[in-house]
Amino acid sequence: MRTFEEYLALTEQHLTDPMPAIGAYAETLEESMKYSLLSGGKRIRPVMLLAAAEMAGGTAEEALPYASAIEFIHTYSLIHDDLPAMDDDALRRGRPTNHMVYGAGMATLAGDGLLSAAFEIMLGDMLAHQQDPEALRRRVRAADAIARGAGVRGMVAGQTADLTSESERPSAPLLTFIHENKTAAMIIGAIRAGLFLGDAEEALQNDMERYAYDLGMAFQVADDILDVVGDEKTLGKSVGQDAQNDKLTWVSMYGMEASRSRLHELTEDAVSALEKWGSSGDFFRILVRKLEKRTK
Amino acid sequence: MRTFEEYLALTEQHLTDPMPAIGAYAETLEESMKYSLLSGGKRIRPVMLLAAAEMAGGTAEEALPYASAIEFIHTYSLIHDDLPAMDDDALRRGRPTNHMVYGAGMATLAGDGLLSAAFEIMLGDMLAHQQDPEALRRRVRAADAIARGAGVRGMVAGQTADLTSESERPSAPLLTFIHENKTAAMIIGAIRAGLFLGDAEEALQNDMERYAYDLGMAFQVADDILDVVGDEKTLGKSVGQDAQNDKLTWVSMYGMEASRSRLHELTEDAVSALEKWGSSGDFFRILVRKLEKRTK
Repeated sequence: MRTFEEYLALTEQHLTDPMPAIGAYAETLEESMKYSLLSGGKRIRPVMLLAAAEMAGGTAEEALPYASAIEFIHTYSLIHDDLPAMDDDALRRGRPTNHMVYGAGMATLAGDGLLSAAFEIMLGDMLAHQQDPEALRRRVRAADAIARGAGVRGMVAGQTADLTSESERPSAPLLTFIHENKTAAMIIGAIRAGLFLGDAEEALQNDMERYAYDLGMAFQVADDILDVVGDEKTLGKSVGQDAQNDKLTWVSMYGMEASRSRLHELTEDAVSALEKWGSSGDFFRILVRKLEKRTK
Repeated sequence: MRTFEEYLALTEQHLTDPMPAIGAYAETLEESMKYSLLSGGKRIRPVMLLAAAEMAGGTAEEALPYASAIEFIHTYSLIHDDLPAMDDDALRRGRPTNHMVYGAGMATLAGDGLLSAAFEIMLGDMLAHQQDPEALRRRVRAADAIARGAGVRGMVAGQTADLTSESERPSAPLLTFIHENKTAAMIIGAIRAGLFLGDAEEALQNDMERYAYDLGMAFQVADDILDVVGDEKTLGKSVGQDAQNDKLTWVSMYGMEASRSRLHELTEDAVSALEKWGSSGDFFRILVRKLEKRTK
């Protein structure tokens, strides 16, 4: 297995390789998709997908189309989330948001294009392996894991709960639902997809399901802490996050001390899920420990 | 093979069967998705998909998840197209558009949810057939055909060209690009997907590619004619975006007479593509002839 930086370099190098060719009269579509794709994301989901594939015994190279796909999906979610009709954000990562540059109509289409392209990429890769039933099966499972994380039982449901929560009474189950779906679902999807591609044995699959849930939830709790503490730079922000004071967050619901102790609990449980995997669990052990450290 | 009305009944009966279960805190998502799904579409794409599957020797029942998927995708495209940032339409099929009922933010998510759910449905069906390599291959090809029709080499590209065309000089190649991508691509995708599911022989596949292209283009030319003829017949009706005088259409580019003769040419070519398929081509022969007749 490689380091975070090595998986990151691989992701960056190949991110737009599988982008389908777009016709001459729709050049703005490609331009607007790439504007947001190449605006300095942390690439945490594709990196985790590649690492999970290698942890399971596969190769990162084989998993690259799926790494691109999950980053395409993450990017679409940010573009739509920033729209005037949603969070109405003018800046993301210090640059004007997609709709500030291309207009809200084009930004809507750029998001639609990225989501569509993610599935075009994965299905194209499946087609290329259709004569190898075992390779095809692994790919179908991976694409399904990504689709579940991104879809109406995952991220889109979380976005909806987040959007409608503004008119609802804050509650612990609602907050958990939002974090599980808006943030954790795509992280779980990335790790599950990588494991499927690497053909992970069932015991590894099960332990990593637990790890991925813990990491996904820890990710959001850490982000909520950092929103208050003020160091946003170190995390790849997930959809819908802003530092609005009236926003329902782990910290606003439970307070800072309880949030830190929840983060610690999640981190320890994530690490213990990796227990029996020795040094092959190092990548993910380091990842979750670093996450907690950044909030100190 | 069955009649249009029989395939339509089958589509209506099972349209939302494969809808993934949505959590309690995202009920509005399911509600808004179903509001647009169940607002009286003509279901032309799913019906063509089912008919193509049976023409190729498969069963409509097996193809139902893909019929739902393509109608989910068509519905998402209408919701996003109606948004204030796009065509800004308040009515569709005589009912308030999705964003007029649920707001533009929720309508954006309903569209995202429908597009995601389409792939969740198809991948779920692939997973259910993962132990049968031949059945799995047919499904991957079908999903790929739908993804291509819907994606950045298809409908999303056409939407983009349509949106940006307002600031460009009208030209014949631009108009053709818009019609090929915005309209024909999804019709071609529906027919190709059905043929793949039914495991069509290559000769049928080729002839139907030609038929599908002709039908897809005829569909848009007929629509452009009806926008004018319909207006003349029913002055004072609420006029949609497509009927605006400054809109680039086949009629505005070439005039009514040339449009009628283009429609006739496409219809005849579509019918001749079916020549060697005898009575098994009846469904599609009748379909394209009816389309021309409607404009008289």
